[in-house]
Amino acid sequence: MCGIVGVYNSEEAANLVYLGLYALQHRGQESAGIATGDGKQIRQFRGMGLVADIFSEDVMKKLPGHCAIGHTRYATSGETVLCNAQPFVMNYAKGWLAIAHNGNLTNATKLRKELEAGGSIFQSSMDSEVFMHLIANEPERSLKDRIISACQDVEGAYSLLFLGEDLMIAVRDPYGWRPLVIGKKGDTYVVASETCALDLFGATFERAVEPGEVIIWNKEGMKSYMLPTKPARRAQCVFEYIYFARPDSDVFGRNVYQMRVGYGKELAKKHPTKADIVIPVPDSGVPAAIGYAAEAGLPFQMGLIRNHYVGRTFIEPQQSIRNFGVKLKLNPVREILKDKRVVVVDDSIVRGTTCKKIVGMLRRAGAKEIHMRISAPPTKWPCYYGIDTPTREELIAASHSIEETCKFIGADSLEYLTEDELFWFDKKPGEWFCDACFTGNYPTPVDIK
Amino acid sequence: MCGIVGVYNSEEAANLVYLGLYALQHRGQESAGIATGDGKQIRQFRGMGLVADIFSEDVMKKLPGHCAIGHTRYATSGETVLCNAQPFVMNYAKGWLAIAHNGNLTNATKLRKELEAGGSIFQSSMDSEVFMHLIANEPERSLKDRIISACQDVEGAYSLLFLGEDLMIAVRDPYGWRPLVIGKKGDTYVVASETCALDLFGATFERAVEPGEVIIWNKEGMKSYMLPTKPARRAQCVFEYIYFARPDSDVFGRNVYQMRVGYGKELAKKHPTKADIVIPVPDSGVPAAIGYAAEAGLPFQMGLIRNHYVGRTFIEPQQSIRNFGVKLKLNPVREILKDKRVVVVDDSIVRGTTCKKIVGMLRRAGAKEIHMRISAPPTKWPCYYGIDTPTREELIAASHSIEETCKFIGADSLEYLTEDELFWFDKKPGEWFCDACFTGNYPTPVDIK
Amino acid sequence: MCGIVGVYNSEEAANLVYLGLYALQHRGQESAGIATGDGKQIRQFRGMGLVADIFSEDVMKKLPGHCAIGHTRYATSGETVLCNAQPFVMNYAKGWLAIAHNGNLTNATKLRKELEAGGSIFQSSMDSEVFMHLIANEPERSLKDRIISACQDVEGAYSLLFLGEDLMIAVRDPYGWRPLVIGKKGDTYVVASETCALDLFGATFERAVEPGEVIIWNKEGMKSYMLPTKPARRAQCVFEYIYFARPDSDVFGRNVYQMRVGYGKELAKKHPTKADIVIPVPDSGVPAAIGYAAEAGLPFQMGLIRNHYVGRTFIEPQQSIRNFGVKLKLNPVREILKDKRVVVVDDSIVRGTTCKKIVGMLRRAGAKEIHMRISAPPTKWPCYYGIDTPTREELIAASHSIEETCKFIGADSLEYLTEDELFWFDKKPGEWFCDACFTGNYPTPVDIK
Amino acid sequence: MCGIVGVYNSEEAANLVYLGLYALQHRGQESAGIATGDGKQIRQFRGMGLVADIFSEDVMKKLPGHCAIGHTRYATSGETVLCNAQPFVMNYAKGWLAIAHNGNLTNATKLRKELEAGGSIFQSSMDSEVFMHLIANEPERSLKDRIISACQDVEGAYSLLFLGEDLMIAVRDPYGWRPLVIGKKGDTYVVASETCALDLFGATFERAVEPGEVIIWNKEGMKSYMLPTKPARRAQCVFEYIYFARPDSDVFGRNVYQMRVGYGKELAKKHPTKADIVIPVPDSGVPAAIGYAAEAGLPFQMGLIRNHYVGRTFIEPQQSIRNFGVKLKLNPVREILKDKRVVVVDDSIVRGTTCKKIVGMLRRAGAKEIHMRISAPPTKWPCYYGIDTPTREELIAASHSIEETCKFIGADSLEYLTEDELFWFDKKPGEWFCDACFTGNYPTPVDIK
Repeated sequence: MCGIVGVYNSEEAANLVYLGLYALQHRGQESAGIATGDGKQIRQFRGMGLVADIFSEDVMKKLPGHCAIGHTRYATSGETVLCNAQPFVMNYAKGWLAIAHNGNLTNATKLRKELEAGGSIFQSSMDSEVFMHLIANEPERSLKDRIISACQDVEGAYSLLFLGEDLMIAVRDPYGWRPLVIGKKGDTYVVASETCALDLFGATFERAVEPGEVIIWNKEGMKSYMLPTKPARRAQCVFEYIYFARPDSDVFGRNVYQMRVGYGKELAKKHPTKADIVIPVPDSGVPAAIGYAAEAGLPFQMGLIRNHYVGRTFIEPQQSIRNFGVKLKLNPVREILKDKRVVVVDDSIVRGTTCKKIVGMLRRAGAKEIHMRISAPPTKWPCYYGIDTPTREELIAASHSIEETCKFIGADSLEYLTEDELFWFDKKPGEWFCDACFTGNYPTPVDIK
Repeated sequence: MCGIVGVYNSEEAANLVYLGLYALQHRGQESAGIATGDGKQIRQFRGMGLVADIFSEDVMKKLPGHCAIGHTRYATSGETVLCNAQPFVMNYAKGWLAIAHNGNLTNATKLRKELEAGGSIFQSSMDSEVFMHLIANEPERSLKDRIISACQDVEGAYSLLFLGEDLMIAVRDPYGWRPLVIGKKGDTYVVASETCALDLFGATFERAVEPGEVIIWNKEGMKSYMLPTKPARRAQCVFEYIYFARPDSDVFGRNVYQMRVGYGKELAKKHPTKADIVIPVPDSGVPAAIGYAAEAGLPFQMGLIRNHYVGRTFIEPQQSIRNFGVKLKLNPVREILKDKRVVVVDDSIVRGTTCKKIVGMLRRAGAKEIHMRISAPPTKWPCYYGIDTPTREELIAASHSIEETCKFIGADSLEYLTEDELFWFDKKPGEWFCDACFTGNYPTPVDIK
Repeated sequence: MCGIVGVYNSEEAANLVYLGLYALQHRGQESAGIATGDGKQIRQFRGMGLVADIFSEDVMKKLPGHCAIGHTRYATSGETVLCNAQPFVMNYAKGWLAIAHNGNLTNATKLRKELEAGGSIFQSSMDSEVFMHLIANEPERSLKDRIISACQDVEGAYSLLFLGEDLMIAVRDPYGWRPLVIGKKGDTYVVASETCALDLFGATFERAVEPGEVIIWNKEGMKSYMLPTKPARRAQCVFEYIYFARPDSDVFGRNVYQMRVGYGKELAKKHPTKADIVIPVPDSGVPAAIGYAAEAGLPFQMGLIRNHYVGRTFIEPQQSIRNFGVKLKLNPVREILKDKRVVVVDDSIVRGTTCKKIVGMLRRAGAKEIHMRISAPPTKWPCYYGIDTPTREELIAASHSIEETCKFIGADSLEYLTEDELFWFDKKPGEWFCDACFTGNYPTPVDIK
Repeated sequence: MCGIVGVYNSEEAANLVYLGLYALQHRGQESAGIATGDGKQIRQFRGMGLVADIFSEDVMKKLPGHCAIGHTRYATSGETVLCNAQPFVMNYAKGWLAIAHNGNLTNATKLRKELEAGGSIFQSSMDSEVFMHLIANEPERSLKDRIISACQDVEGAYSLLFLGEDLMIAVRDPYGWRPLVIGKKGDTYVVASETCALDLFGATFERAVEPGEVIIWNKEGMKSYMLPTKPARRAQCVFEYIYFARPDSDVFGRNVYQMRVGYGKELAKKHPTKADIVIPVPDSGVPAAIGYAAEAGLPFQMGLIRNHYVGRTFIEPQQSIRNFGVKLKLNPVREILKDKRVVVVDDSIVRGTTCKKIVGMLRRAGAKEIHMRISAPPTKWPCYYGIDTPTREELIAASHSIEETCKFIGADSLEYLTEDELFWFDKKPGEWFCDACFTGNYPTPVDIK
């Protein structure tokens, strides 16, 4: 997954983008980069690791300009190497162009092969490079037209920011998989993956970039265009609500925290149990656990303490570290758990191994009964639209029934939300979500891995 | 404040100490170090920053030995420079000795002047260096005797670990200001500031190092001695319960999380208010807010979301960063707060500036009423025993009444626990706490700064 | 300028390439890189700075494989940024391919524009990227054929190494501008810019890669092909003799040291003067000064001492540093110079500013007369074939007569070799040199800058 | 060995010291540091490695002040760790004091034991720390008196610089082992190990600090005192002439380059041989080889080319690297050597291993005869006064006759200067040199290692 942020018309564009990336750090901790335009040239700096570690004052001084885009990345496609960090800058017939991409293309391999057959060369393993090649073709046409044309060639999820020497372009795919919002602060325009980035530097939320919309900012102001492609229905990623987005963000027009509290309440209503306390797996399970406890009338407690000097489980790429990481990251509060019947709320079970370790940890801390409640349906299918999930083989719910999973993790009971319960809230007219990771109903053709 | 950890009799002593420092990272993020002994020599590595950044695999390879001590530091005395990082290693008549110190001496300046008048030289600004000079004197006596003798010269708080080539010594001052516990894992002994460090590597809690106790581990096993000094009463730091220790730790024989929930309950009982929701200032206010909400029968919500990619407010040394840090660190969830009467629970108000910013932030997010509840009495006096507090002048409660403070921070109401309410729990026989930061009753003579 | 080295069929291919780069460090100090192939994939590491600083043991461990190519670079085209470091690795229809290029293409801008017009994108400002695009075209043909075809499209100087997962290819342009030699050590083949790289790891010199030759090493051994293009005459860079190559190397079949001693002797024969001592501008002027002194029967002395902890003047990119650098780099030995008539031998005068500073320095050290002797003709024209020379405007000899230059630098006399004297040695049959920097007779069309 | 430099009364004291360290880099490449005084406090920065790598612009900004001292170090006593880098800064009864020390104390171990017995603690393994303890004693006396008193306690070699907040003190031991000179530039005073440091920033040489002299610079100007100790004779290190100092420096009132040319001439006169060419082992053997060739009437040639991207053999601490280093560092020019009778001039043979490799290298390059000539007597005894020599056991000349050494290195002949020939030049009245490394006549009592 990735976070993107762009700023147009500010004397400290790079600085605002830097802050935006700070706010979006939860969307990717592998690498980050900023590209700026000052009307004459594009400058860029990328590095591996956290935003706070990559950008020093010295680096920021080398990024002047009134427009800038930034990217924070977790590897969904491509290896973990610097040449895969974004923004990705290319030089082509019309000069320089930078791109920052959140999402994943489902026909990238096919397009890449076609491009390579036509003589194109690639220097990274990112599918975003495919975009660049498509845009560089037919340079006699306008950039806007070439972007629109490229968007018709690609399939999959893309919230994009482009940066020219003196222009910024935002694009969201017609399905609207990934969020992308517009804010304003004085005369400065801001585009970001989530509203929390707007909050950080005091920009006010204007509106979302609509699915299929192309917005161009340049000296003449902001202009909007629509991609000609109209899919039968949209496909907003429901997993942004369940796990990915920051709870203080509004995503797809709803507050993420409230959504998660709602999932917890729904869980308590439909999947109740006799228990003494409700605890979350921190931090992602906290709002749902609060909702569960409130609905069930049970005490909410922080029975597992998280060591915040370590990164997010889900987002760490190396299995070997992750295993040890559970102990490094979570420690039970024995006095809270001892001889208690405990409801444990988490947002998902992926491979089941982390969950199993947590159950064992709670058991050893004295919990009498452990009732696992997941604030989403079982994750059975890989995501091809930008979220880093393992292959089907590794997803425990793909091959195990709920009972079998319960046994594997060692809990006394395990309940998920059903797919119906997932949509307990009122959808807006014409609104539709992608829930392919639960149902396998992929909105576009994919090769199941 | 600092965290210390020691390991005796393990093939991977340095590795266990490293993990212990990881668990104690919340006690100090400025620098960290490890010293090891292999029976023949002492090796050492220190660096600035977080444990995870300082110790690479390469560094760990250079720290062989069966005993090791480690230290993670936040500057309480001395500047922020590498030569102030601990463990501090000295060479003296009897060979090499390393020290790791948690606490603060109240007569260090006086002792230092006396030592300097006698020709001693100092290479750091740490008061721990005073200890070393005192111990190096009269080398013809045994190390144990010299440590005991040095402890009689110094005043103030000290939980200490010493490391020789083949021995480890733990000392806790007669007042028992700072915690220090002993754990065991097989034949390996572990000493650490908090029990959460024992948990991380699976050691079982044995007992606390008693106030005034000196424990020596060497080839002949573990032996305990008592310092001859017997103060009239002990002085366990109550602020470890309120703020400093990790909630999953047991400190002074009580679970910290439970203590904080208790403070919240006490607050709700004695300082109730009409409200719609209870929210904590995360992370430190969470358990007390849970207690408050439970006792008051109000919904608990995470109305402020913390960005964990930034460090702790309290612990950041530069005022200029801290101001900006509130925005960087906390973001309100508008949908939760809008038009609500909100009880906000935090553990302390130091200068009042951060609190003021939080109240403003909540106000702008739509909160109708803001009722600040602090799970401790007003902090009116500086700590001289190891906690980094500003001078009296900077402490808002030293010069402002509760009403004035309430006005300054802009809340609708502000209530603290009284000093009596702070001790709602049953003290053990002979148990006494240091609450000087609230009362000014310093257990030892100090020069008020 | 750049140095390249490749190794085929060695268990420690990367290590040998590393040593080769060490030996070729004088050909470029801006960046260096190594790519390896292990039969299955290509790995790569590049960095800014010196070989010794870029490649640690950790890095080397990540470069397994039986074939490898390396590159050490000084910017001749393109900015000073990491993305311009080589080897340059691309992914195209046929897999991965790495390239290391010494030289400069004279039609790169034109080709680049054509490629961009056809939709190609570029990610660096190196003209070597043009090669990659040309090779990626028409992927249905064999790699050898595409390389040969690409070589017919480009103009200018190129000594190239390509690396596939299990193959290495060496190419030298038909003019033979840059040297490229083949060595052998047991069953291992080595290709390098200069023979000094072969010496370092004990390989024996086999033969040069001939101008226009394409050599492929793969499992079936080594095969040679010739490019169809046959220029009327070759164009070996005479400046390799004068300045660039290491004196212990054999270049174009002659020992560089001997050539330089010969230049010095020729200078003494044709441009004698009355003097007391002969001193070189170290290090480049040493062999010619030895030759001059021997021929003239004058004492040779090291009247200027070089501080070797600083880099080469010619090769440092920043004017501001270079100016100070003369003082940092050279210090006169007063006792040697005082009241002496001094012949100073250097290999070239570029802008004249460094030379002027040296003359001033010698004057202040007490030299009575200063007779500057340059072991080459005046540098009047920029090089477009890989040597970093400034524009015509900056070349003092382009706008100043020898007398004017002499006056500018403040010497008592100044003499150069004539163009005839430059070729005092016997050329082999059909041998021809590029001396365009002296004569402006560029072997290929160029746009004078 | 070490280089030291101090500046008093300059707005950019740290910058001048930095340049001075650059010029003295040949005296030590292991670590370097600068301490500055601004009238109120002392600041300091030290690091491992080369001056150019340690001091960035950022670091220099943090070193304001009008007086400064610097140190560049090669380990003679103590391990290779940062805490052994100098300047060494201490806090004692009278405030802060920094020290930079070139030389080695012969009674450091004894003094250290005495100090430790008195309760002193040590944090480094440097004997310079002993000085600091001695000076800190009896703080009621003036700093000058305490320095003088400390100098009477220590034995051995010391050229010292002290820095207070607003004062600089230079001290040279009564024997005068190590050089120390005073320069002036406007109102700024400069003190440095060698005159080449004065040259670099345009200071003019004033005079040497005399053996036994203590010079204090403060607001009242410069004042000179003499240590009461008067040894029977001085002991200037003759090895500074032979190898250590930079040839462009004047040391002990003589130009080093001229001295080395003189050694070469003496060698040729007293130890002639039939030969075709004379070559140096670069760089240290160059002046002597020039002298030999001139005297013998033989052609001087650079038959071995040095790769300057590697450090000095003598100064590299790790044996394992050094062995490989000969190949990395030196490459023969075959065309010069082939079928020739070669005189090879070097300054010393230490273990004999490097020399043996060089002879083998020349042999393989085709030399018909190899006549080794050393511009000094055989090195038979370790130095205890600051030069890093191995133990007696490792010195080949300590256990092998010249014939045996010749056989070991594989030369056709080997000749050294005799001890008499070493002093071919006129000594000044009362001048005496330390030649203990050749004769074993140590001017002070030492424990032979």
